[in-house]
Amino acid sequence: MNVNGTPYRSIWLAEDGWSVGIIDQTKLPHEFATRTLRRVGEAAEAICTMRVRGAPLIGATAAYGVALAMQEAADDAALDEACRLLGSTRPTAVNLHWALSRMRDALAPLPASGRCAAAYAEAAALCEEDVEINRRIGEHGLRLIREIRKGRGKPEGTLHILTHCNAGWLATVDWGTALAPIYRAQDEGIPVHVWVDETRPRNQGAGLTTWELAAHGVPHDLVVDNAGGHLMQQGLVDLCLVGTDRTARNGDVCNKIGTYLKALAAADNNVPFHVALPGPTIDWDMTDGVAGIPIEERDGSEVTEVHGRLADGQIAAVRITPTGVTARNFAFDVTPARLVSGLITERGLCPASEAGLLSLYPEMGGEAA
Amino acid sequence: MNVNGTPYRSIWLAEDGWSVGIIDQTKLPHEFATRTLRRVGEAAEAICTMRVRGAPLIGATAAYGVALAMQEAADDAALDEACRLLGSTRPTAVNLHWALSRMRDALAPLPASGRCAAAYAEAAALCEEDVEINRRIGEHGLRLIREIRKGRGKPEGTLHILTHCNAGWLATVDWGTALAPIYRAQDEGIPVHVWVDETRPRNQGAGLTTWELAAHGVPHDLVVDNAGGHLMQQGLVDLCLVGTDRTARNGDVCNKIGTYLKALAAADNNVPFHVALPGPTIDWDMTDGVAGIPIEERDGSEVTEVHGRLADGQIAAVRITPTGVTARNFAFDVTPARLVSGLITERGLCPASEAGLLSLYPEMGGEAA
Repeated sequence: MNVNGTPYRSIWLAEDGWSVGIIDQTKLPHEFATRTLRRVGEAAEAICTMRVRGAPLIGATAAYGVALAMQEAADDAALDEACRLLGSTRPTAVNLHWALSRMRDALAPLPASGRCAAAYAEAAALCEEDVEINRRIGEHGLRLIREIRKGRGKPEGTLHILTHCNAGWLATVDWGTALAPIYRAQDEGIPVHVWVDETRPRNQGAGLTTWELAAHGVPHDLVVDNAGGHLMQQGLVDLCLVGTDRTARNGDVCNKIGTYLKALAAADNNVPFHVALPGPTIDWDMTDGVAGIPIEERDGSEVTEVHGRLADGQIAAVRITPTGVTARNFAFDVTPARLVSGLITERGLCPASEAGLLSLYPEMGGEAA
Repeated sequence: MNVNGTPYRSIWLAEDGWSVGIIDQTKLPHEFATRTLRRVGEAAEAICTMRVRGAPLIGATAAYGVALAMQEAADDAALDEACRLLGSTRPTAVNLHWALSRMRDALAPLPASGRCAAAYAEAAALCEEDVEINRRIGEHGLRLIREIRKGRGKPEGTLHILTHCNAGWLATVDWGTALAPIYRAQDEGIPVHVWVDETRPRNQGAGLTTWELAAHGVPHDLVVDNAGGHLMQQGLVDLCLVGTDRTARNGDVCNKIGTYLKALAAADNNVPFHVALPGPTIDWDMTDGVAGIPIEERDGSEVTEVHGRLADGQIAAVRITPTGVTARNFAFDVTPARLVSGLITERGLCPASEAGLLSLYPEMGGEAA
């Protein structure tokens, strides 16, 4: 997507042909800064500290992280260590483990001497596939938006879409998952307006989704995470559209903390609630998402301290609590499949259920753990 | 309640016998500052800017605001103007109008010469009644906590209570509504732990409820507003306990934005959801809360800018969005009665329904508008 007229992806191979460029998303929306990763440890750090975030982009960064490791040493121990290090960065998104398994499967059979070049080729292929996956999600989601527009009795009017967190191009290699259909709709001239949940504690909605939508010219308003229920109760939302960090085989979707609350409100007010996901976020071994998906708990300081821009332009953190207050910081929650109106994947639309997923991915039949 | 060992109420008559002291709650939790109101306009400003907030305290401040007006002029025009000015400060809490009606009813029949003294007497009486109401809510709520503790199979263990916004002593004249039972339980030696919703956008949970609970020694953890659904889904909440700014005759409760989402999560996870309220927050003329209660919309800058304490101790606001982002800021939402397990009033416990309310307030039978 374009940043001030220049096309960018969220991750890219640098001109030197081996180091890896990323957008440092911890600096957005106040500063657009890129950063160069030259060692596997820097890739792991970028994932841990959320310089890169979003399940698909975490996977892509891990893939390039393995390639960076292979630059330095490509024996079995180095491959094991790279996968271990990168795999321990964040627990919830399954794309991370999917990407690492894919890299290992591609590299392990090769002699050490062939691994580095193969790693870069595999990481590049994974990124290209991610772009194509998200482009297709955009196409299928556009069809859904057209249908919902008709179904909501708004063949001409503006469709109001609520989204949570950032599932835009910054969360993927390009296009985004939940935002891809919105960008496509905007490009087609369908009037859309987005309610952007700020998404505490890290404010990815307030800082990243607003930044993306503004750059693409999509009308939007920011609201606190508390507001969605009221908006839906008052008929101000036509569709909820979110991403997911891990989709269980039974259709349960794990996404940014607070998604479950919006799904409850959507169900209570007959608002369609759809989840956009690339195939690699499906965890075919996870048969019960609510019971089984591990939920990352991050440092409480992300809750007690809020980062932003002071009036003088400086970036600073303010503490919003009295001294000594402790906070718990669960990063994700799981929305049960029964609350999900449908899934949007690169292969099309399906119900949020094992049968629904298998209708699109029949090759996964019978593989539950 | 005590502040650093000194007993305080949230509003009081100053030693001069006519000006009115308040705690400037916009400065909490970083600074404990009191402020003196000497004119009706200062009382109105304190309500508008939320130096005082919480439905019962807004009512009490409005009552003293009328008294301050009567100091300067006590003719009919002055009484009308004071009620108009104070009545226009905030639209949602019904206590404001209840308090103003009560003041008008007490003062209008009197000669102008008698109104000032009568106004101070009436405002003082209203405050004393508020304290007694909340004390009783604490007693009835304590009974409920004991019952729930037994019912949840935790006769000995810690009861985990989730609360939203601040319905503590700072929101009333003393004791609080939703927090009164928690203080009583703590005083009785019942082990309680409170999950405190931060309550965006103004962070009354992060700043005021934590401050109150810490002062009273009640164990608590701050969480983002997004977290409650996950906590309930994981069995980490035994009871939701919140206040309300206006209770409709049908049992619908209007409270701080986001309350409705927590009620949905409580219903979905069989967690009891109780609302504590003083009689004056009941709007007997409002037969349908969801359809009829006016929801205040405040300035979007409350969403885009977050106030707190910098590392050097200074208080500052940081902007969390890109320049130019607009925000909508709905201050309250309405939780339908069907999601409320029960109401706690100064007269006891009742179902959230017209029949339930009339069982406690039989004198209001047949008075619906």
